[in-house]
Amino acid sequence: MKLDRRHPRFHSLAVREKLVRAVADGIMVPQGLIAHGRGEAFNYFLGEKTTPSASRATSAAAGILLTAQHPVISVNGNTAALVGSEIVRLASMIGAPLEVNLFHRTPRRENRIARYLLNLGAKEVLGVGKGASMTIRGVASSRRRTDPKGIGTADVVFIPLEDGDRAEALKRAGKTIIAVDLNPLSRTSQAASVTIVDDVVRAIPNMIATIGKLKKASRGRLRALYRKFDNEQNLAHAIQEMIQYLGGWINN
Amino acid sequence: MKLDRRHPRFHSLAVREKLVRAVADGIMVPQGLIAHGRGEAFNYFLGEKTTPSASRATSAAAGILLTAQHPVISVNGNTAALVGSEIVRLASMIGAPLEVNLFHRTPRRENRIARYLLNLGAKEVLGVGKGASMTIRGVASSRRRTDPKGIGTADVVFIPLEDGDRAEALKRAGKTIIAVDLNPLSRTSQAASVTIVDDVVRAIPNMIATIGKLKKASRGRLRALYRKFDNEQNLAHAIQEMIQYLGGWINN
Repeated sequence: MKLDRRHPRFHSLAVREKLVRAVADGIMVPQGLIAHGRGEAFNYFLGEKTTPSASRATSAAAGILLTAQHPVISVNGNTAALVGSEIVRLASMIGAPLEVNLFHRTPRRENRIARYLLNLGAKEVLGVGKGASMTIRGVASSRRRTDPKGIGTADVVFIPLEDGDRAEALKRAGKTIIAVDLNPLSRTSQAASVTIVDDVVRAIPNMIATIGKLKKASRGRLRALYRKFDNEQNLAHAIQEMIQYLGGWINN
Repeated sequence: MKLDRRHPRFHSLAVREKLVRAVADGIMVPQGLIAHGRGEAFNYFLGEKTTPSASRATSAAAGILLTAQHPVISVNGNTAALVGSEIVRLASMIGAPLEVNLFHRTPRRENRIARYLLNLGAKEVLGVGKGASMTIRGVASSRRRTDPKGIGTADVVFIPLEDGDRAEALKRAGKTIIAVDLNPLSRTSQAASVTIVDDVVRAIPNMIATIGKLKKASRGRLRALYRKFDNEQNLAHAIQEMIQYLGGWINN
């Protein structure tokens, strides 16, 4: 269907069409569309913009990623479809491999996504086929599998759009987790050391810009970015930002 | 994929699988999955239960439907997939025809949904093929079409899960609108005379129960159910209920 540009939600509808194509291309599963819809609603409550709490989390996350020993970026179908190029760029800036992690895992889709990311310029894509030979405890789905060269030995894992089971299991495995999640109440948000409550479409470009500015920063300065960061407190601020937005509707 | 019953979101995942099948069956379009996901998030903010404001709206809506001259129930793919049987039952209780109205309209899908509803026992399904010969002004999409035997001449239109464009156009056309919408801020919610801010899976059975109890009520009693109902005020209460839920997360 051709979208009408006069529709007041044209931008959001255009992103939807893009994702529907990603399903047709085998990058995303239909269930990923539902997850995207959930995000849309939370995004709405943020006024569809990056809030102060999200900016603070992005700074802390940048400090952690730039001082990590072995950071890894986890990619699922939605992340690839929404911010494939940006995530490849971020990986190259921080020297981190990408690892494919799917809730609905099939070898075919793993390969599709890996090929898609390699075409966008990714140096290394882990977690594909026999590469994903390690398991993390406490995850019921096929998402328990990880790559020993990637998340298996990572100290810091960046998980844009991850499910709660896996986020909690990664935390129990002693990883420092940085999440992007529009729902500040989700188990992923609660499990992470740093949660960026923002749309991934805004969060990853912001992360790239922040890291670009910190290229020559000393380790001391980088550590200062996250030393005083309190995720629980910051999530409370994110919730307060949503409450403020909702409250504005009652008073108008 | 077989769902793991131990997953903490098993129920929500099971509904998702049901909707993915409805897409495969041609009842829903993939974009409907995104819309469902949006609803999931708002549902979350209601604590996934029917709130006092939703119950008040349901009573008012029942009063309006039972005193209407020519009520019509509008059905789209998501409504058919989620509450097909219930909506057929409701239609028979209030003697209203069902009318198929799709944002992504194709003759094939119209027919699929009509056949699905007829199989569930619907007496009459309007809005299919050449039946949808009237147009309502101010709607950009193919949703502008309506059936002269149905919404075209209706005084009251019940629209579970409708898009904003169409809801606003129906309002301009002088119809009394009853909407079910989990987003109290949406244009549909704002345009309706009565908005039930609740999951359609809870709202329709509640409506059936409420109407069942009012079978022998006098017109005076039915009118009293909606005479003092103020939708703007009730929507403000719905937003306050969400704020309260969110606030609970900060204080715990």
